[in-house]
Amino acid sequence: MTDTYRAGIDILSQTGSMQDARRDRAAEVAPDFVRTAVSFTYGEIFARPGLDLKMRELAAVAAFAALGRSAAQLRQHVEAALHLGWTRSEIIETLIQTAAHAGVAMAIDAIADCHDLLIETDPASPCCD
Amino acid sequence: MTDTYRAGIDILSQTGSMQDARRDRAAEVAPDFVRTAVSFTYGEIFARPGLDLKMRELAAVAAFAALGRSAAQLRQHVEAALHLGWTRSEIIETLIQTAAHAGVAMAIDAIADCHDLLIETDPASPCCD
Amino acid sequence: MTDTYRAGIDILSQTGSMQDARRDRAAEVAPDFVRTAVSFTYGEIFARPGLDLKMRELAAVAAFAALGRSAAQLRQHVEAALHLGWTRSEIIETLIQTAAHAGVAMAIDAIADCHDLLIETDPASPCCD
Amino acid sequence: MTDTYRAGIDILSQTGSMQDARRDRAAEVAPDFVRTAVSFTYGEIFARPGLDLKMRELAAVAAFAALGRSAAQLRQHVEAALHLGWTRSEIIETLIQTAAHAGVAMAIDAIADCHDLLIETDPASPCCD
Amino acid sequence: MTDTYRAGIDILSQTGSMQDARRDRAAEVAPDFVRTAVSFTYGEIFARPGLDLKMRELAAVAAFAALGRSAAQLRQHVEAALHLGWTRSEIIETLIQTAAHAGVAMAIDAIADCHDLLIETDPASPCCD
Amino acid sequence: MTDTYRAGIDILSQTGSMQDARRDRAAEVAPDFVRTAVSFTYGEIFARPGLDLKMRELAAVAAFAALGRSAAQLRQHVEAALHLGWTRSEIIETLIQTAAHAGVAMAIDAIADCHDLLIETDPASPCCD
Repeated sequence: MTDTYRAGIDILSQTGSMQDARRDRAAEVAPDFVRTAVSFTYGEIFARPGLDLKMRELAAVAAFAALGRSAAQLRQHVEAALHLGWTRSEIIETLIQTAAHAGVAMAIDAIADCHDLLIETDPASPCCD
Repeated sequence: MTDTYRAGIDILSQTGSMQDARRDRAAEVAPDFVRTAVSFTYGEIFARPGLDLKMRELAAVAAFAALGRSAAQLRQHVEAALHLGWTRSEIIETLIQTAAHAGVAMAIDAIADCHDLLIETDPASPCCD
Repeated sequence: MTDTYRAGIDILSQTGSMQDARRDRAAEVAPDFVRTAVSFTYGEIFARPGLDLKMRELAAVAAFAALGRSAAQLRQHVEAALHLGWTRSEIIETLIQTAAHAGVAMAIDAIADCHDLLIETDPASPCCD
Repeated sequence: MTDTYRAGIDILSQTGSMQDARRDRAAEVAPDFVRTAVSFTYGEIFARPGLDLKMRELAAVAAFAALGRSAAQLRQHVEAALHLGWTRSEIIETLIQTAAHAGVAMAIDAIADCHDLLIETDPASPCCD
Repeated sequence: MTDTYRAGIDILSQTGSMQDARRDRAAEVAPDFVRTAVSFTYGEIFARPGLDLKMRELAAVAAFAALGRSAAQLRQHVEAALHLGWTRSEIIETLIQTAAHAGVAMAIDAIADCHDLLIETDPASPCCD
Repeated sequence: MTDTYRAGIDILSQTGSMQDARRDRAAEVAPDFVRTAVSFTYGEIFARPGLDLKMRELAAVAAFAALGRSAAQLRQHVEAALHLGWTRSEIIETLIQTAAHAGVAMAIDAIADCHDLLIETDPASPCCD
């Protein structure tokens, strides 16, 4: 286990993204690649100084929503952004902004794909007002 | 309720697209954005003079089929195009043309994703001859 | 020279797109493929009955503007659409609609990329009114 | 039935891809287009000399994994690549390389989407060690 | 001139993006659409409460870098992000993160496309250390 | 200088891609990231066993041609593929196959973008017959 992989696992833990069904499925097929992937993405890129982890997750949400290729990837980063302290309202705003980057239809798809993560379930703490 | 939103709802009604499960899900999370989105897309863009609504829906079908990012978006515009008077055969031709824009595989995906909307179910009115 | 290639050349002539610098460059490298490409795109797809050529070019403009991958491809189809009788105003509307398919930024890029083809140069025939 | 279509069916048979649920669904809607599509893709492109069929399927796997638009298309080409003699390990390497073309997330998605095709089920012939 | 357009112009001024050669070119062709586009993008989306303008520009940089479709769009948002107080180093980190969203090649393209905006020219204020 | 970076530089040398104007420009802005990028792409991914380097470059050509986002990236991998022993004819076939993955227009763009690398300049060794 390399230092970079350990750093990657540490960052992953901080984002609350240790559980990821698709990454686990990929790891059953290509375990060494998934270790390299975690080392690179989290141990090399997200671990860099110069921008804090919370900000990096907002950037990831904006990017994956604009790309619109994988609801699973977007959802993972929305969950991480919530875990790192962004409010539902701030994440919803980030997804709404997709309308300016990639069109209204992509923004609606992104919000619909994350509906259960973003909907207010607790009547005592109203979201998005 | 602004005039533009009212215009948007009016155009949406004309396209027969008032019901849209994903837009409704997004509206539960971000109701004000969905109003803005309807105002912009239908009240500002689709409502413009210079190209009629029927033609605009054909352009939307061509664009979403080429993009290939969302079967739900494509299906909604195929339904709207049918509602506005395009025949099944004309819409099928528009989807087939995706082979020239984005490749044969995208065209096959687009047609397969809209199979139930485009297949001839009434033996008395054969489609696609 | 196959019948399909002849049909493709005939359709190309009707669209006014016989001259195409990039297709010519590709033909210097892979002449047989370019013949196959013209046969398929114009001799098989655009030549199909069920949707007329003028309508097909509008669909092509909508699709290439949404894809946003190649200004050269978009410009060729805008020129063909003008050649087939669409007015500048109608084509501008088709490009504007890209804002609904792929975002405002893509629509602005598409219009800027075709600026010289769409701008009114003759004061006696004002465009876009 | 044209010679090109016959050649396409022959190549399809060699790739083991005669059964394709989405192509069959598309063929129920647009049977003549699907014949044209098979003629072009397999009878004109994949049938060309200059690169053998096995190599072409590796290129197809690399391209569809990078595009990330359709798990069904990717899976079909992974199955064809296996049928033509590529080992699971070689195909897994091709999918892993997607990390260099389109990002780690796309590579993980591609591998996860083909999990059942690539996972080692036979303990006597361990893959990927 | 509507209130929303005025709000859009006000936000545009705050981002320092009043000058934009491509938007100006598009405005020569479709002036009313460009007003609608500014009203929507800046007057409706970027003007929303819930996420401040500085943060929205970081999200825009992340999204346009990942999309990789338009160097002009990316450069405009990088300039706006600098104008709103992000340091060169923070923006460089946001572009680097593209490697995690859309691949190393896209990150290198994004940084190369913004080279002149991000390179340190003043020896007294070293960037990126 | 880490072992992985050294391995990456070694693989880069084998592909003949040590000179790359855009990577050099990016390295002026973000030198440490470019080292990480070379380490990951060439030292971790392209250096993996299980598929040889020559095959990996064919996969890269197929993927970047299908993505169609960066002529510079595509050209670099075409040059590397030539350097590693693929013939012009085999690379042209790989680019032609893009017509099956992402459409005829993308294939023509890819071939036109690499025209000078693929055209036969030596009359004594005719390419592509």
